[in-house]
Amino acid sequence: MAGNSIGQCFRVTTFGESHGPAIGVIIDGCPPSVEIELDFVQNELSRRKPGQSNITTQRKEEDNCSILSGVFEGKSTGTPIMILIPNKDQKSKDYDHLENKLRPSHADMTYQFKYGIRDFRGGGRSSARETAARVAAGAVAKCILKQYGISVNAAVTQVGPIILKTDIEQLDFSKTESNTVRCPDEATAVKMEEYILDIKQQGDTIGGVISCRINNCPSGLGEPVFDKLHADLGKAILSINAVKAFEYGSGFSAITMKGSEHNDLWIKDGDGLKTKTNYSGGIQGGISNGMPIYFRTAFKPVATIMKDQKSVDRSGKASVVSGKGRHDPCVVPRAVPIVEAMASIVIVDHLLRNKIYK
Amino acid sequence: MAGNSIGQCFRVTTFGESHGPAIGVIIDGCPPSVEIELDFVQNELSRRKPGQSNITTQRKEEDNCSILSGVFEGKSTGTPIMILIPNKDQKSKDYDHLENKLRPSHADMTYQFKYGIRDFRGGGRSSARETAARVAAGAVAKCILKQYGISVNAAVTQVGPIILKTDIEQLDFSKTESNTVRCPDEATAVKMEEYILDIKQQGDTIGGVISCRINNCPSGLGEPVFDKLHADLGKAILSINAVKAFEYGSGFSAITMKGSEHNDLWIKDGDGLKTKTNYSGGIQGGISNGMPIYFRTAFKPVATIMKDQKSVDRSGKASVVSGKGRHDPCVVPRAVPIVEAMASIVIVDHLLRNKIYK
Amino acid sequence: MAGNSIGQCFRVTTFGESHGPAIGVIIDGCPPSVEIELDFVQNELSRRKPGQSNITTQRKEEDNCSILSGVFEGKSTGTPIMILIPNKDQKSKDYDHLENKLRPSHADMTYQFKYGIRDFRGGGRSSARETAARVAAGAVAKCILKQYGISVNAAVTQVGPIILKTDIEQLDFSKTESNTVRCPDEATAVKMEEYILDIKQQGDTIGGVISCRINNCPSGLGEPVFDKLHADLGKAILSINAVKAFEYGSGFSAITMKGSEHNDLWIKDGDGLKTKTNYSGGIQGGISNGMPIYFRTAFKPVATIMKDQKSVDRSGKASVVSGKGRHDPCVVPRAVPIVEAMASIVIVDHLLRNKIYK
Amino acid sequence: MAGNSIGQCFRVTTFGESHGPAIGVIIDGCPPSVEIELDFVQNELSRRKPGQSNITTQRKEEDNCSILSGVFEGKSTGTPIMILIPNKDQKSKDYDHLENKLRPSHADMTYQFKYGIRDFRGGGRSSARETAARVAAGAVAKCILKQYGISVNAAVTQVGPIILKTDIEQLDFSKTESNTVRCPDEATAVKMEEYILDIKQQGDTIGGVISCRINNCPSGLGEPVFDKLHADLGKAILSINAVKAFEYGSGFSAITMKGSEHNDLWIKDGDGLKTKTNYSGGIQGGISNGMPIYFRTAFKPVATIMKDQKSVDRSGKASVVSGKGRHDPCVVPRAVPIVEAMASIVIVDHLLRNKIYK
Repeated sequence: MAGNSIGQCFRVTTFGESHGPAIGVIIDGCPPSVEIELDFVQNELSRRKPGQSNITTQRKEEDNCSILSGVFEGKSTGTPIMILIPNKDQKSKDYDHLENKLRPSHADMTYQFKYGIRDFRGGGRSSARETAARVAAGAVAKCILKQYGISVNAAVTQVGPIILKTDIEQLDFSKTESNTVRCPDEATAVKMEEYILDIKQQGDTIGGVISCRINNCPSGLGEPVFDKLHADLGKAILSINAVKAFEYGSGFSAITMKGSEHNDLWIKDGDGLKTKTNYSGGIQGGISNGMPIYFRTAFKPVATIMKDQKSVDRSGKASVVSGKGRHDPCVVPRAVPIVEAMASIVIVDHLLRNKIYK
Repeated sequence: MAGNSIGQCFRVTTFGESHGPAIGVIIDGCPPSVEIELDFVQNELSRRKPGQSNITTQRKEEDNCSILSGVFEGKSTGTPIMILIPNKDQKSKDYDHLENKLRPSHADMTYQFKYGIRDFRGGGRSSARETAARVAAGAVAKCILKQYGISVNAAVTQVGPIILKTDIEQLDFSKTESNTVRCPDEATAVKMEEYILDIKQQGDTIGGVISCRINNCPSGLGEPVFDKLHADLGKAILSINAVKAFEYGSGFSAITMKGSEHNDLWIKDGDGLKTKTNYSGGIQGGISNGMPIYFRTAFKPVATIMKDQKSVDRSGKASVVSGKGRHDPCVVPRAVPIVEAMASIVIVDHLLRNKIYK
Repeated sequence: MAGNSIGQCFRVTTFGESHGPAIGVIIDGCPPSVEIELDFVQNELSRRKPGQSNITTQRKEEDNCSILSGVFEGKSTGTPIMILIPNKDQKSKDYDHLENKLRPSHADMTYQFKYGIRDFRGGGRSSARETAARVAAGAVAKCILKQYGISVNAAVTQVGPIILKTDIEQLDFSKTESNTVRCPDEATAVKMEEYILDIKQQGDTIGGVISCRINNCPSGLGEPVFDKLHADLGKAILSINAVKAFEYGSGFSAITMKGSEHNDLWIKDGDGLKTKTNYSGGIQGGISNGMPIYFRTAFKPVATIMKDQKSVDRSGKASVVSGKGRHDPCVVPRAVPIVEAMASIVIVDHLLRNKIYK
Repeated sequence: MAGNSIGQCFRVTTFGESHGPAIGVIIDGCPPSVEIELDFVQNELSRRKPGQSNITTQRKEEDNCSILSGVFEGKSTGTPIMILIPNKDQKSKDYDHLENKLRPSHADMTYQFKYGIRDFRGGGRSSARETAARVAAGAVAKCILKQYGISVNAAVTQVGPIILKTDIEQLDFSKTESNTVRCPDEATAVKMEEYILDIKQQGDTIGGVISCRINNCPSGLGEPVFDKLHADLGKAILSINAVKAFEYGSGFSAITMKGSEHNDLWIKDGDGLKTKTNYSGGIQGGISNGMPIYFRTAFKPVATIMKDQKSVDRSGKASVVSGKGRHDPCVVPRAVPIVEAMASIVIVDHLLRNKIYK
């Protein structure tokens, strides 16, 4: 009800403010006897952590996590898994000047409107720091997906005007981690990095695109009519900070296609079936059809810029918001593991939901 | 769990197959003493019903509904509202030839995969006929929104290559119902209609875009961190048959914008505040900020075409699917009330959820 | 949220007022390919229907139901099952005099308090007529339990001071339907019937007990820590009109027992294990252990009596409530199928929930 | 779904095993600006903690808690409140001998059946230690109830054969904390304490009763038809370790009452209304009517006794379970704050749910 949980069978509830003592997550519904390695969870967190390269914020958050319950001798027990990530590098002073100022395109004002009170330090609950808890939960989800041989891979495919044009079904995700931008094409990655550094020098920020592909997902996942697989993926991805758009399969490009072009014809594939094309993006009628699932998502430019911006305080009095703190010039490189985490959570949730029919 | 409900406080559960005795909906959580006029519900259903013009399917479904509970002497009582829509014009014979054939880009195969059994007549549960139940629920939601002075308006803004370029914040929705396409610009509507008729003559189908704007929505709606207002809108819209994409505010266009361009500056507005621009689309940090909310959604071309298509049967044997039945060449004109219904359901749900904090 | 649904995987939502056009139920989450016979559903409804004998109300409600969705050629399809029960014998005039009077120990006043409006005809939504929808859903649940060989049997074991002392684990439920009281001991049944007829002649009503036993329930059902199997059974049973108490296993008698007496020792049973005694009532730590599950539940005397009662109207003015209408002198004979229905719904729900771990 | 959450608007999710690093709770849905004092939460935990007197277990668990999120400068912010209670006095060795033995009437076997794996140290997740997290959440609930002037008080009213016969509506709860048994009658408390010490000396355990009264609860709480106020109270109470029965209002005593005796007549009360008697226990049709709410609950004798018990191991081989560890001879004195916590959580949840109608 209050919005801090997602998933039905695999239920993820996060808590924590950016400048409180800790953030973390409870995962309720992890099946028993899944191998959960702390190192793997830690590694996923490191892919998201600030300060990992020259194109991300220089804030240092080590994001060392502990598993406090639900795992016994390296395996899940079926009871709730709680993962705690203490906050360490909290320079609250950076934010003290913001108690009454309203940072443009941040959630300062809307939290104030909604709750009448807010922890204004670093965005409090609305800070993207909350996504570390999602990544921890996503790491547990990935441990389950591993048992099924399902892979969830995301990568940066656009930064501002720099576009990687490779078809998503052809992307080689093994190269994603080889550069700081997390673009699986080295030449494009270099251009993106240069572009981000240029934007950073301007004290400005820029948007981007993350593409994601799920391979080896079995058919039958998704619950019509409302909890269609792509609808739940869409919600999960749209719930990530700074996301403005979601499309799957043909997406917006379907608008100008004719049915005779867009329809994916069924053909024989060994003993089974597959479709000749995959404009459906692996999902038909809200249910996976065994083909690769893929989607794209747009991130807006980070709202905190290193330029003075005119704003007002809560009483409407004119004020100037100056960009202090340490922020990302472009959010997509660090958002890749977050997209993977949310997609993994949704797929695991639907894998478990689908067991009810077996 | 099984996916046929949406909403938490205002909970909508639909049932029914396209060729069963009836479809319908239970709405649980409608506040008491809301005026519910059967005529208004009926009128909304008529906006969606087949056979309404020469650019829609010629199937006749009168979609006469009855309210069987929850309304007493014209007012809601706080108990579940059940609306029944009997099926009448069921030409099941049109579908008898489809028991074993797999219609390309339909849900035939995925339902078969998931459940191992399916009501194959007219798509059964996966038929877009189910959306009539959504429109009925949306009509009840609109009765509640009326009390708050909130309006939810959708319109067709693109059909194939024909684009209405007017900014969504400038659209005059009062003109939407004046043409069969439901495009609020008469000149563009004429072009769209001609285009659709041409596509129809080819026995083909075409995609399109519906844009939606919500005016007068109070600030404070939306539940971070997962049930952000736009995330719930996105899920609701993506759950509509044939939708492939959702974007709100700046959407995909945010990718190439800089933070200094994209940020919406707060300015004084009488005794209150508003933003100078509205790239946020009325939602910041997942919570409405009092500005107009707007989003765009892409519909794929209808999968049933009047051309022969190569497919296979369930055993993999080659077969030809011929387009029989009576279908729409373009789904967007009839989908306008569905988009409005789903958006209205989400806004009412969040209006009620937000009351908990008061 | 608004309280008209129960169950998570097997989700039952009822609607309808006693004097509206119909009542009914949507069952979302019934697994596919379950055989659902309309005759069986109808038969369960007949066990609950009014007018079935001289010790029940003489109201005639035929309770003829239709299945409007989710069943195709006699089998469930995995989509929502909707069962409609039209209201026929609605003598609303019996209730016209009650618009402003507050019937003692009815829900008239509390509905008025809560919603500020109510359908006062025959109790509206608070009428026990709503339980017919539960019985219909319970019949579907029993069709699923049949596949697993699980039986759910309830019977009347006390009416006022007349007690059937047989241990619940020894009850022969095959005799329950052989008398109008639904007491599985003929001699006791005769006494109970006489007692009820005497009470009826006094224009009064009396309470009673229903006992229920679930045989052949597999171990592992129940979700600690909150959704313990007995906690969900307790809630489901307590939600039935007129129920005041629930105990399982040793129940209240555990208070005066010592641990050394109460503990159920594990012993070998063929290749498996069982317990020597069964004070646990088949549930330990909230999870079924494979032994028979049993519970008892107390029903209060029906609130409508054929005597004048002093009350007040909504403004506090003194008034007299006279017992009109046709009511039961004792509710338990007709409540037996309701208790079975609610217990069956809970067991099916937990059977499905438990599949997630497999 | 996996059972570790309760409540809809005020949603409580607990985690943790008795011998893991910590237990704790996330509370999602606490309204903003509620004063939450750590000292008060700590004090409630101390009422439940082991080792508090000579009639409880001698285990020392200090149960020092920290609030890690959701509270800023002493007030709730509307975001999730996380309370952590580290485990300290974990003598796991006491349990090492139990890996394969099945303790009678414990959850050892059922957890093994359900999950196929278990943290066997001290009962793991099934340990009553989990209830500390409930008490912490209940303390937050009490902070909210304070704003409404609602009080929730429980007390021990029976220990084995020693019964406090005072009517629950007459109990003076201010005396509950004045003795170690938590019985609000000093003379009876002395007898109970003597009885418990005697049982303890025998190496045995005994059951008991806790009664609870909720004063000043407004009318209108409870959501028919399934989430009736007493049904949700019943579930919450039945979910507490060792509870076997729940009755509210007249409870089991209603069985032998006639309608003419049991009906609570409405009378004028100042400008409002009240009932002359209160057999309804403050709830009619599942909705509170403004009168005091009261219920009774039965606890079984603690399963761990200091005597040898015959059992089997998981393979069915005979073994002897010896009572080691430090355990309570009677659970009810320490369960009083747990009953209050669960009742408070339910009342707050329904207070918030009821706001939707306003």
